[in-house]
Amino acid sequence: MKVGIIGLGQMGSGMAMSLLKAGHSIIVYNRTPAKAEPLAVLGATVVTAPGDACRGDAVFTMLANDEAVTDVVFSKGGIIDSLARGAVHISSSTISVALSQRLTDAHTRKGQMFVSAPVFGRPEVAASGQLAVLTAGTDDAVDRARPFLEAIGQKLFVISTTPKDANLIKLSGNFLIACVIESLGEALALIGKAGLDRRQYVEILTSTLFDAPVYKTYGTLIAQDRFEPAGFAAPLGQKDIRLALAAAEDLKVPMPIGSLLRDRFLRLIATGGASLDWSAIGSIASQDAGIRPGGGRGGR
Amino acid sequence: MKVGIIGLGQMGSGMAMSLLKAGHSIIVYNRTPAKAEPLAVLGATVVTAPGDACRGDAVFTMLANDEAVTDVVFSKGGIIDSLARGAVHISSSTISVALSQRLTDAHTRKGQMFVSAPVFGRPEVAASGQLAVLTAGTDDAVDRARPFLEAIGQKLFVISTTPKDANLIKLSGNFLIACVIESLGEALALIGKAGLDRRQYVEILTSTLFDAPVYKTYGTLIAQDRFEPAGFAAPLGQKDIRLALAAAEDLKVPMPIGSLLRDRFLRLIATGGASLDWSAIGSIASQDAGIRPGGGRGGR
Repeated sequence: MKVGIIGLGQMGSGMAMSLLKAGHSIIVYNRTPAKAEPLAVLGATVVTAPGDACRGDAVFTMLANDEAVTDVVFSKGGIIDSLARGAVHISSSTISVALSQRLTDAHTRKGQMFVSAPVFGRPEVAASGQLAVLTAGTDDAVDRARPFLEAIGQKLFVISTTPKDANLIKLSGNFLIACVIESLGEALALIGKAGLDRRQYVEILTSTLFDAPVYKTYGTLIAQDRFEPAGFAAPLGQKDIRLALAAAEDLKVPMPIGSLLRDRFLRLIATGGASLDWSAIGSIASQDAGIRPGGGRGGR
Repeated sequence: MKVGIIGLGQMGSGMAMSLLKAGHSIIVYNRTPAKAEPLAVLGATVVTAPGDACRGDAVFTMLANDEAVTDVVFSKGGIIDSLARGAVHISSSTISVALSQRLTDAHTRKGQMFVSAPVFGRPEVAASGQLAVLTAGTDDAVDRARPFLEAIGQKLFVISTTPKDANLIKLSGNFLIACVIESLGEALALIGKAGLDRRQYVEILTSTLFDAPVYKTYGTLIAQDRFEPAGFAAPLGQKDIRLALAAAEDLKVPMPIGSLLRDRFLRLIATGGASLDWSAIGSIASQDAGIRPGGGRGGR
């Protein structure tokens, strides 16, 4: 089957690889065309306008934020103008609940299908087709998207028939990861200031109560003050906390750790940490304990 | 070998069972004698004063708090008065860093050995000899304690030669668990108020990013508002956060989530939740979102 992919960042490129490996014919678009070259070598059709990526059975969007998605969907000649009736737009970007609802409404009006399908997993997981995929949409739309979702994901969770539900779960999941980062940052400040070995501490935690990949990944990064290169940049983490809090405000749900995390990201970015991995908020507690220099760049 | 156990709560009783199973001869003491009866049937020697439990190669203390440990150690006829030179006191209670240092000094003055050996694991894990044991003390003391520690634990981590270091790591671990509880509480308030299925949500989390027992255990309890009977009562959780913050204050380490957790426990206990499991702080976010009744007893 034929499928478009709009957005070839680390995640989108990985998903495109998985779709190719599964035997699908792919059409790729990226604002910066150079990122399409490795895929072109492997047989992808490269196009120069988002609308041209909409000529297949489905089109994925995997973009950085609401603004980028809004642009490729609603601009003249974009997805809304170009997608065939009955074809499906699969939105895998981490976007706001509000935009997800707007996309649902717009596609429905045009007789197009829409599935929300945000994913859990870092880029290397995307490239190996082992993402966890959260999906929500009408039964017809999910059925149509399924062959493509199964190509990118090892696990597929069908949440509900309302696309925005999958976005809320994705945002809440990123909130929980940020909680892990901040709590590890505080614990590592405590045991580090007591003079204990931070790496041994992470090994103990992750071989007992906290043997989940998220503790291993972020515990190791924070214990070693290794925030460059960014696997997931601080402004993206900040955006996800902002979107989680926006959903919480709409629903009237106070989230005190959420509010604390918002301030952590603001501070990280205000003090020179915008290019660092989002786990660099985990160095702030050590800075405040006087055992790491300030400026969002621990260990220097 | 012969070993005493002072404190036969759920954890101490489980550890006593494991020591019996490993072939050690055990002497048990508990303030409420009835709790010793099941162990007496299995061959334990039951004594009526803490000092009488100190006639072996080692004596464990597994008590609720600093006050209880101080009492059995320093009272007339207690452990300090009764333990032989060269015998070892193994302190497995979750106590303050300050008391651990005081115990170290007092035993050293008397020519007795002291090992700090707090554990991770719930009572059923203690009874099956599968605890994770954090231990710290002089090499001689750890060597002497080792046969007993290996009887109660599946994993033994030797932290350092300074007993209080093991206590700090234990307290920081309980802080991290409380962070998991509060963050799950906030996430479940958000997705619950959006009308999504809380149990399915926990299943998704724990089969993807958060596949650690601590997320499964507490996610399930919070999603189902099941806080009775208490596996670990709220006042014990409150105590552990208090001790973590006391250590942090001594070391001058600000811990913003720690401060937030202190207030959560105060509120839970102030509003009738003292008999509930400590995971009941995870219902507060839902109360504040208007989807659970107040009073620390969600779901009623």
